[in-house]
This record gives sequence, structure tokens and C-alpha cells, in this order.
Amino acid sequence: MQIVSENRAFGGRQLVLRHPSAACGGCEMTLGLFLPEEARAGPVPVLWYLSGLTCTHENAMVKAGAQGWAARHGLALVFPDTSPRGDGVADDAAYDLGQGAGFYVDATEAPWAPHFGMWSYLAEELPGRLFEAFPLDPAAQAITGHSMGGHGALTLAMAQPGRFRSVSAFAPICNPTGADWGRKQLAAYLGLDESTWARHDASLMMAERGFEGPVLIDQGASDQFLANLRPETLATAMAARRQPGAFRMQEGYDHSYFFVSSFMEEHVIFHATALWG
Amino acid sequence: MQIVSENRAFGGRQLVLRHPSAACGGCEMTLGLFLPEEARAGPVPVLWYLSGLTCTHENAMVKAGAQGWAARHGLALVFPDTSPRGDGVADDAAYDLGQGAGFYVDATEAPWAPHFGMWSYLAEELPGRLFEAFPLDPAAQAITGHSMGGHGALTLAMAQPGRFRSVSAFAPICNPTGADWGRKQLAAYLGLDESTWARHDASLMMAERGFEGPVLIDQGASDQFLANLRPETLATAMAARRQPGAFRMQEGYDHSYFFVSSFMEEHVIFHATALWG
Repeated sequence: MQIVSENRAFGGRQLVLRHPSAACGGCEMTLGLFLPEEARAGPVPVLWYLSGLTCTHENAMVKAGAQGWAARHGLALVFPDTSPRGDGVADDAAYDLGQGAGFYVDATEAPWAPHFGMWSYLAEELPGRLFEAFPLDPAAQAITGHSMGGHGALTLAMAQPGRFRSVSAFAPICNPTGADWGRKQLAAYLGLDESTWARHDASLMMAERGFEGPVLIDQGASDQFLANLRPETLATAMAARRQPGAFRMQEGYDHSYFFVSSFMEEHVIFHATALWG
Repeated sequence: MQIVSENRAFGGRQLVLRHPSAACGGCEMTLGLFLPEEARAGPVPVLWYLSGLTCTHENAMVKAGAQGWAARHGLALVFPDTSPRGDGVADDAAYDLGQGAGFYVDATEAPWAPHFGMWSYLAEELPGRLFEAFPLDPAAQAITGHSMGGHGALTLAMAQPGRFRSVSAFAPICNPTGADWGRKQLAAYLGLDESTWARHDASLMMAERGFEGPVLIDQGASDQFLANLRPETLATAMAARRQPGAFRMQEGYDHSYFFVSSFMEEHVIFHATALWG
């Protein structure tokens, strides 16, 4: 892993890393990694943060305000990119398909299949690389994300029992098989056989299997994308399953990083409680 | 004042405002204003944040992590722009002169004089407009800033006795009359008669008159711009004057917003103590 930049932050280190990814067809992937001061002494728990449409590794790293809280609770933060990138990588003119919009799946369809392996990248490759190279505790992982990243966090957490102790999301895409943010991308990346889509739908996964640890969802009541997010499907599935956790509708908040940063402290405390407990 | 955007944040409101400025030759000026929840009930104290070279009103608003702490302590935040802007406004190809680099002075020289009136804008015009339009308490003001904005904060605070109860700065330009970040701009904006420069030099102002309230300075020891900032001149002047306050050299930190955000909590608490005391 190449260190692209390093800034001291909150007593720890904010790194930007780059490495070639096998899961993404050899593509160079960039990510942010925050290591708290405690990482000097040994492995620390890790909170993964998956970002939304149009984001890179950088948006949350500079705008979500997570490092201060992670430092206070001795957690590392990982900020992966949202897709493979580069001149040789397929793309689309739309903001919600292709580069910046990987949707956390392994694409099986042309032209996406050669590089768009974000599921395998996050489920296997990147954790393997990080745990080898940095003082991070693989037995203490949690995951969160915003919008498309909330979708990724929830589906990865439910699909990998035992890996994450807790999962949370800010305004997640809850029901991609039933919304504009989802049907278009799942059709493009996975093809028209909808039976392959269900394992990438947080509400369907919640109804089918749930999550073995606590779940925290925050959703802005004034979010401009409610029709694409369909939070009611996840709230219904959580309640029906008696899923331990909370689904919170936050009055007046929209879809922006002002919303994410407003509740970041509570999400970090939520995960720290699970990770250190 | 036109409201360009509004986002709920930390229980309050993050506004972006736009208005024509007389001090800046009729130019449309943009700024950020964070109002904490307490502003619904009546006027709240105000912390001004002045930004550095190349920044707009937006950088600190999205990257400094100040709103969460301001909300906790019931403070409003003002994020002005760093210069006049627009097609009819003079500019320079260099990043450190012209638009984005107003240096918080009233320019007297061509081609800058018609629009570059950032001193009068911040000393008189903008406070007048804000106190008229929003529930802000003019008797409870404090000011901070980063780099060029630290220079602006310190010089405005010392030049306007009675206006600010406290002043702080993150890696301020301390001695512009003696550094590359300063001599070029003061010559361009104010002309070659250096006697007009001294009132825009924080270290000279500190030696000459000091500040009547507490002062807090944070400087990264690994800042890549130490030769341009000359923090030793301000530390020396503060110590010689017995200025109440603290000058802190922070090991390992650089000039970035990771540095600013790392110490934002302490700066907000510092100002809140002065404003609510």
C-alpha cells in the first residue's frame, strides 16, 4: 500500500492510501485511513464508512467530522472509494451509474464486469490488505455509510455474519430493488434476472435474516430523496423482525453532510459501545 | 440578505447568504451563517471565522467541524468570503493575490481599490447587516481565523477595542510586513509606503497595543508554511507585552483543515467562556 498523503489529526494520523486491486480488475484504488493515537501501541477497532453516489474516498474524510469522535473512542476509520476509477474503466454520463456509483456489488454484465467488483473488494480484498499492513483488529469491526453507502454497509453486514459487531447508516438506500436508486443500477451491473438482486437489498435482507448485533438508522424527514431511499421499507422490516436497534426519523434534516455530521457523534458512540463492549 | 441555501445542522440552521456590498464596490458577497437552536428564542453570541488564501465562505463551513461545538455552546458562526468576486472584479493569476486573497485590507491602489474593501466590509458593513437581519448579540462577539484569516482576525480584534471579547487563530500569518505572505499583497493593495502597512501586521499591533481580552494561538510545528507565517514574531510580542492568553506549538500538525478541526473544540470552548462569562 502506497501512502499518498499523511496529516496529523486529533492526535492520530489521517492517511490516504493507494493500491492496485485484484477485485477491481487491477485498477488503482484510493482510500482514506484514520489511525487514532492508540494504534501506536497495538491493534485498534475499525469503523468502516461507505460513501454515497458521486463521492470519492475524500468526501466523508473531510466533511463528516468523524475523526474527532473516533479519536476520542480509540477507533480507526476506513473511507473506501465508491467505485473503480481510471481511463480504462467503464463509465456512464449519468451521475448514478459507473464511476462514483459502484453500488457495492460485483458486476456480472458488460461493460462493468471487468472492474466493478466493489463487493469482493470490501468483503475480502481490502480488509485483508489493511489488516496485514496496519494495526487494526479484525475481531473488532463495525460499519456505517451514507445513502448508497448505507445500502452497502447494511447489505455487507447482513451478508457476512460474524464480521461486524454493529451496523449503522445515514439515510441509506433501503430498497434498491423497488426504487430509481437501484433498479437501473442492479439491471446494469447484475442483469435483468431479478433473483440476483435480493441479496443487495437491505430491506429484503432484513426481512429474511436480519443482523446479529445492534442496528442504528438515522433518516432526515426533509430528505429530498425520500422516494429513492424508501426508508419505510427498512423500518417495517426492522419492526417485523424485532431487530435490536433504532430507526430514527430526524425532523428537518436533509440528505447533506450537514445531516451526517450532526449525528456522527452518536453513531461513533453507538459503534464504540459495541466494539469495546 | 438573500438566503441561497439552508440546511438543518446540529439542531440549528446552516444558511448561505448573499447580498450586494457597498464596501466591496457593489459586488455580490456570499457568506455562511450558522444559527444554533437557541437563536429561535432570541439573540445569541457570535463567533466570526475568517478563512485563508484560496478559500471561499464554504471551506470552513464544510471542513472545520465548528458547528457541532458552536451548537453545544449556543454560539452563532459567521463564515465570510475572503475577497470580492465576479467578472467585473480585478484578479491576478497568482493564488495569493486578488480574488480569494483579499488580505482583510481596504485597497487604495489600482486595480484593487474599487472592490477590495474587506476591512470595511468586516469591520462595519457585514456586522451591521447581520445584526439587523438575524438574532445575533452585537455585545457578544468573538473572532477566529486560519492563516490569512488568522491575520484578519487578530488585526481586526486589536484595531476595534471593545468589539470582540476574545480572539484566536489557527496558524495565522503573523508578520505580513516581513514575509512573502504579506509584502507582495500589502504593496499591491496599499502601495509602497510601508507606514500604511503596520496596522495590518498582527505582531506589530501586538507589540504596540495588544488585545484587551484573552488570546489563543495554535500553530502546527510541522506546518509547511512556517517561513511565511513567522509565528515566532507573534509569540515574542505576546510574551513581551504580557498578553493574557496562550501561544501553543502543536507537534506534528501541518497547515491543513485536519489541523484546524483537531483544535476547533478547544477554540470554541475558549470563546464560549469569554462570551458567556
